[in-house]
Amino acid sequence: MINFQTSPERYQHWKFEISGAVATLSMDVQEDHTLVDGYKLKLNSYDLGVDIELADAIQRLRFEHPEVAAVVITSLKPRIFCAGANIYMLGSSSHAFKVNFCKFTNETRCAIEDDSKHSGRRYIAALNGTASGGGYELAIACDEIYLVDDGNSAVSLPEVPLLGVLPGTGGLTRLVDKRKVRRDRADVFSTLAEGLKGKRAHEWGLIDGYFPTSKFGEGIASRVEQVVAAQSRSGSGIKLNPLEIHSTDDSRNYRYIRLQLNREQRYADLTVVGPDGPQPTTVDEIQELGDAYWPLQAYRELDDALLHLRVNEPEVGLVCLRTEGSIDSVLEVDRVLTANRDHWLVREIILNMARVLRRLDLTAKSFFAIVEPAACFAGNLLELLLASDRSYMLIDPKSSVAISDLNGGALVMSNGLTRLQSRFLSEPERVDQVLNETNPINTEEAEELGLITFAPDDLDWEDEIRVAIEERTSLSPDALTGMEASLRFAGPETLDTKIYGRLTAWQNWIFQRPNAVGPQGALTNYGKPTKAQFDFKRT
Amino acid sequence: MINFQTSPERYQHWKFEISGAVATLSMDVQEDHTLVDGYKLKLNSYDLGVDIELADAIQRLRFEHPEVAAVVITSLKPRIFCAGANIYMLGSSSHAFKVNFCKFTNETRCAIEDDSKHSGRRYIAALNGTASGGGYELAIACDEIYLVDDGNSAVSLPEVPLLGVLPGTGGLTRLVDKRKVRRDRADVFSTLAEGLKGKRAHEWGLIDGYFPTSKFGEGIASRVEQVVAAQSRSGSGIKLNPLEIHSTDDSRNYRYIRLQLNREQRYADLTVVGPDGPQPTTVDEIQELGDAYWPLQAYRELDDALLHLRVNEPEVGLVCLRTEGSIDSVLEVDRVLTANRDHWLVREIILNMARVLRRLDLTAKSFFAIVEPAACFAGNLLELLLASDRSYMLIDPKSSVAISDLNGGALVMSNGLTRLQSRFLSEPERVDQVLNETNPINTEEAEELGLITFAPDDLDWEDEIRVAIEERTSLSPDALTGMEASLRFAGPETLDTKIYGRLTAWQNWIFQRPNAVGPQGALTNYGKPTKAQFDFKRT
Repeated sequence: MINFQTSPERYQHWKFEISGAVATLSMDVQEDHTLVDGYKLKLNSYDLGVDIELADAIQRLRFEHPEVAAVVITSLKPRIFCAGANIYMLGSSSHAFKVNFCKFTNETRCAIEDDSKHSGRRYIAALNGTASGGGYELAIACDEIYLVDDGNSAVSLPEVPLLGVLPGTGGLTRLVDKRKVRRDRADVFSTLAEGLKGKRAHEWGLIDGYFPTSKFGEGIASRVEQVVAAQSRSGSGIKLNPLEIHSTDDSRNYRYIRLQLNREQRYADLTVVGPDGPQPTTVDEIQELGDAYWPLQAYRELDDALLHLRVNEPEVGLVCLRTEGSIDSVLEVDRVLTANRDHWLVREIILNMARVLRRLDLTAKSFFAIVEPAACFAGNLLELLLASDRSYMLIDPKSSVAISDLNGGALVMSNGLTRLQSRFLSEPERVDQVLNETNPINTEEAEELGLITFAPDDLDWEDEIRVAIEERTSLSPDALTGMEASLRFAGPETLDTKIYGRLTAWQNWIFQRPNAVGPQGALTNYGKPTKAQFDFKRT
Repeated sequence: MINFQTSPERYQHWKFEISGAVATLSMDVQEDHTLVDGYKLKLNSYDLGVDIELADAIQRLRFEHPEVAAVVITSLKPRIFCAGANIYMLGSSSHAFKVNFCKFTNETRCAIEDDSKHSGRRYIAALNGTASGGGYELAIACDEIYLVDDGNSAVSLPEVPLLGVLPGTGGLTRLVDKRKVRRDRADVFSTLAEGLKGKRAHEWGLIDGYFPTSKFGEGIASRVEQVVAAQSRSGSGIKLNPLEIHSTDDSRNYRYIRLQLNREQRYADLTVVGPDGPQPTTVDEIQELGDAYWPLQAYRELDDALLHLRVNEPEVGLVCLRTEGSIDSVLEVDRVLTANRDHWLVREIILNMARVLRRLDLTAKSFFAIVEPAACFAGNLLELLLASDRSYMLIDPKSSVAISDLNGGALVMSNGLTRLQSRFLSEPERVDQVLNETNPINTEEAEELGLITFAPDDLDWEDEIRVAIEERTSLSPDALTGMEASLRFAGPETLDTKIYGRLTAWQNWIFQRPNAVGPQGALTNYGKPTKAQFDFKRT
């Protein structure tokens, strides 16, 4: 079972140092400390275990170190920054694992960009040696890239020429869409196994600068100094403590999340429990409560549960999302968050909620929201319903859902729209109509407003849910993955939706083709004396 | 060998009728007249042969019938409009053929939308019976959809529930992005094999209206009358004559296109010959010359050559684009086109050039532009260079390229940008700088302006081109297809880029998965007494 929980004192592959307003994340992959057996992590190549540490470090920077203005990502290995995802790990992994691995590494890189965009922290990739494949893709997720000019070190995307697959963490999209490298140059670069060194890499816009070996440290330090001088940050961080998880064979329970696995029927019930007891009303109280504050703890737990479902429960194809608790309590939490959204900690808490909800949007499982009288699909938790592929709400005087200000713009999807905007593309005026509903909304009103899909009555309820679950889990899981990915993100496209929707789909395809993974495929034959032999039919 | 040339008198599956300002395209598929053996086209299901006729009809409407304001697409089969792509044809086709088939049918539906958007012709889908799968996708490419309300007829997308694949011609994307159907309703609809009938289909936005059987003809006629009354169209059409093609084993030559196949090395040389002799300068002269006018004939020929390469030469992975002729003559043609762009015929000629160039953008082969002294990469033909994955221009006093007004906005890509805008995303000011170049541009200037990729001199030229061809054709064709699709369309996304980039990639993946095409897959077992058995791991 893969565990996504870690903390700096347990890191094996990264050194995490804070010095004033500067954090340095140094990659120093221990080649024998792999997540599973069968490969060695040479040359700072990575597997999911390495990336779980990176994701944790970025998350901790945001909550534990608000004072940090600049993050330097570099390596402790001489002449090598990072060689990307480990090829032997990929070669020995199942297709499903490869895809989930790529998705998580993509989310980690998007988390870097989210921190930069919304929290103003500046990420500097200090390439003290060659950055190839996923190594360069990690760099290109940063705001600035500097390469050592030692006559040898280069940036490269050798996936196409060496491995017969695509860069798997958004490299092609970021090349032409983020760095806006000219497409013919991007074509040459992406087919050139050895990549490009300092001067030309800079001319082509692949890096932001280069320094000779003797001036590299000084060059980076001077740039970091400028970045730090341009910002003033304050606040004292809170500690992210380990989540407490109680597991049995068919359940996984947290403080606010209950996951019940019905493996025979290939679905899970995931229940989010709302806040209970008195909640903080001021920033000081929030700061004091720290990671035990409901919107932080519940969403950290939800995040872990989603990752667990993705990687450890591949046959669970459907998740029934349920909530339990007081609508008023959820709305009160949202009111306090909204009132204090300019405070760094509250901002980080809301941004984390948004990231977790995007993780849900991007999870390749069906989601049905089930709304019963004890539920509290209100405000931030209403987003769970809106993120679901469909929803069922019991006709009952005690069934209701409710709106808060957080539904109005704080929790955007990857496409840059709120879930309400995405839902009502054909009737944008509905968004305001719904946002103006200040009272709880009963089932008939919810149906009238277009917030829910089905509203069965008491007589039909159990049968309708049972049949819906049976039908959904009987369908082809591949077709559902493609269908949901197509229907969830209507409207505008962004760098993120391009990366997930377009590149991931291409990569899924290529990762299955005999030319990559067949006995004579490039991925299979990488590092062997044998050479790949392709079927040259173009598709 | 598949032939893309046809004309109404040879149609086997469509009835093409013109009555005043109304065209009626009636589908009446002859089940035994298949493109290859091994399946029957029952229930108005289609194969590529059926769609080649539809594409031809739409193309002829634009050039031969400018007076037509409304196009009714309907069926001559009782109770059935169209059952979509034939499943047995798909089941017996190679992966590469399936993908190319879907691409062509997508281009045909985009051509309907292109006609509606740019030439104002209104397409009305008159569903006299059930429209399922590709049948509904054909309807949803039209401007308006009306369904007969006979207690039985429905619209449906049964691909996911019945076949374990996705709708292959943009159905999912058009559902949520064009018709803006709510995503949870789209989810229900796309998993409901039997689809939805009149009333509910209308409520959910899947159709624009429905009529009882007895009033169906009248209802459609009345709507058509409104459409026709709202437009005034004039002009007399020109005839699109059959292209003359001279083929040998390794060449395919047209009047203005020469295709040389180097199959051993898996590349082709495609040469476009510029206009020769005196060219029309007025609309009357253009009208008189008709389809022999260079920009119409050369681009019709280019279109045919591209389709031929896609379907009949799957192992040719690289096309070297060359031109031959007088830059001044090309620029003069562009000047006349630009000056008369408001005339219906000139507008159609330019729109056709744009469509052919988009067909090139969407072709899954590498394109290298090769610029030598005899070339005429000017104006509209410069787009061939800009559409290429990279370009090589010989340093020679007689080598030059040139700009015309047509590079400024008439020939947009699927992403809604010109090729110059797509090229200079990072330096948008360059677009105007280039457009202001009124004189021919030599190699050094072209390199300086960023128009070309490489500028070898005479000493290196032959070797550099030879090595570039060898290297390109040695790479994994799948990885190249995915890479080029990712790099060619930077910048904004549109309905078209979503359909091609996202949905096609997903479909490529799903069309290969054992859950669809394996011995126990849904596509394999469709129509058999055996039932599909899935590997339920979600990917």
